[in-house]
Amino acid sequence: MAIKLYYAPGACSLASHIAIEEVGVPYETQKLNLMEGDQRKPEYLRLNPRGRVPTLVVDDHVLTENVGILSYFGGGYPAAGLWPKKTWDQAKLMSTLAWLSNTVHPAYGHMVRPARYVDGDAAQEAVKAKGRENVWGYLEEIDKLLAGHKWAIANQYTVADPYLLVFYRWGNRAKMPVQSLKNYTALAQRVMARPAVKKVMADEGITLD
Amino acid sequence: MAIKLYYAPGACSLASHIAIEEVGVPYETQKLNLMEGDQRKPEYLRLNPRGRVPTLVVDDHVLTENVGILSYFGGGYPAAGLWPKKTWDQAKLMSTLAWLSNTVHPAYGHMVRPARYVDGDAAQEAVKAKGRENVWGYLEEIDKLLAGHKWAIANQYTVADPYLLVFYRWGNRAKMPVQSLKNYTALAQRVMARPAVKKVMADEGITLD
Repeated sequence: MAIKLYYAPGACSLASHIAIEEVGVPYETQKLNLMEGDQRKPEYLRLNPRGRVPTLVVDDHVLTENVGILSYFGGGYPAAGLWPKKTWDQAKLMSTLAWLSNTVHPAYGHMVRPARYVDGDAAQEAVKAKGRENVWGYLEEIDKLLAGHKWAIANQYTVADPYLLVFYRWGNRAKMPVQSLKNYTALAQRVMARPAVKKVMADEGITLD
Repeated sequence: MAIKLYYAPGACSLASHIAIEEVGVPYETQKLNLMEGDQRKPEYLRLNPRGRVPTLVVDDHVLTENVGILSYFGGGYPAAGLWPKKTWDQAKLMSTLAWLSNTVHPAYGHMVRPARYVDGDAAQEAVKAKGRENVWGYLEEIDKLLAGHKWAIANQYTVADPYLLVFYRWGNRAKMPVQSLKNYTALAQRVMARPAVKKVMADEGITLD
């Protein structure tokens, strides 16, 4: 089985990248430079017409969306232990992945890419400002949800944890005071301490800031 | 096992409502009137602090997010046949649920609830306009993806199909020419023909328009 992940350094694809590395299967990667528009080149759009990262290719089959890829390496490789065993915990995990993907990620989108959501300079500035306010609210919410928990779901490391790392890192890079979020910071440190995570961060050429 | 779904008529919770009905387990429902702010009342916020629908309560356990609830009734009740058997098809399903939830639903959010995303009347009007443009683009994209397919995923009726019905209905109610989308219209009709769907639409007191 030939597995290839298309990613951009530090993008949300980081979570998928970590999940594959944790599973321990052989895979190759293809780095996209989003600033240079690699995601809009015809050869990439043939794989993923939406022009987003990540894209996973397994033999000739294409899978897009972080949540889809995290589910594949989580649920599809149960021996790797990145997926809870109980149905209810699986549903809680899906709920968390969905919320990160449909609420937290889009709020960053408003902050960074307002042109997707509104036309006009003044309106884009207003969308950015509200996006930043919303992002910080969500990071605080995550911090509260993590109180008393070692990991996000079911007291075990799952694919939700590297996904949470992505948004912690983005907040840090956007100069938000993420270190003041004690539970979230402790989780990020636990994730960062994992050998697979260290390797992927080094491969992508990124740090937490 | 006591199962209770909190929903609002015609909201995205319609997909979860249909999924439970299809599974065939006993359940009760609690209708929320979003216009009257039921979702912000203390007794509901205790269950779901985000104040959104749907919320599922199974015995004393709470599950939020449509995608989480759809996964629970899809993956957790395999005999009901709403979930593909193959790992790859499951991942494709998750990818589709994620995209509907993180891209298509938020675009409607921009159209209907711009105040979530930006402050100021003019900016909110601009967000609305772009949201409408984006929604229509996504409905056209769905129509193309459905070409040659009876159902969204793996040639079987899955929880993705009632979720697609939600967005078809919203487009119809927003006076978009959804009937011109031949594949999507055919899918919506197939979903609407199912007894469980007819029953849930009647219970919620809604029609396709």
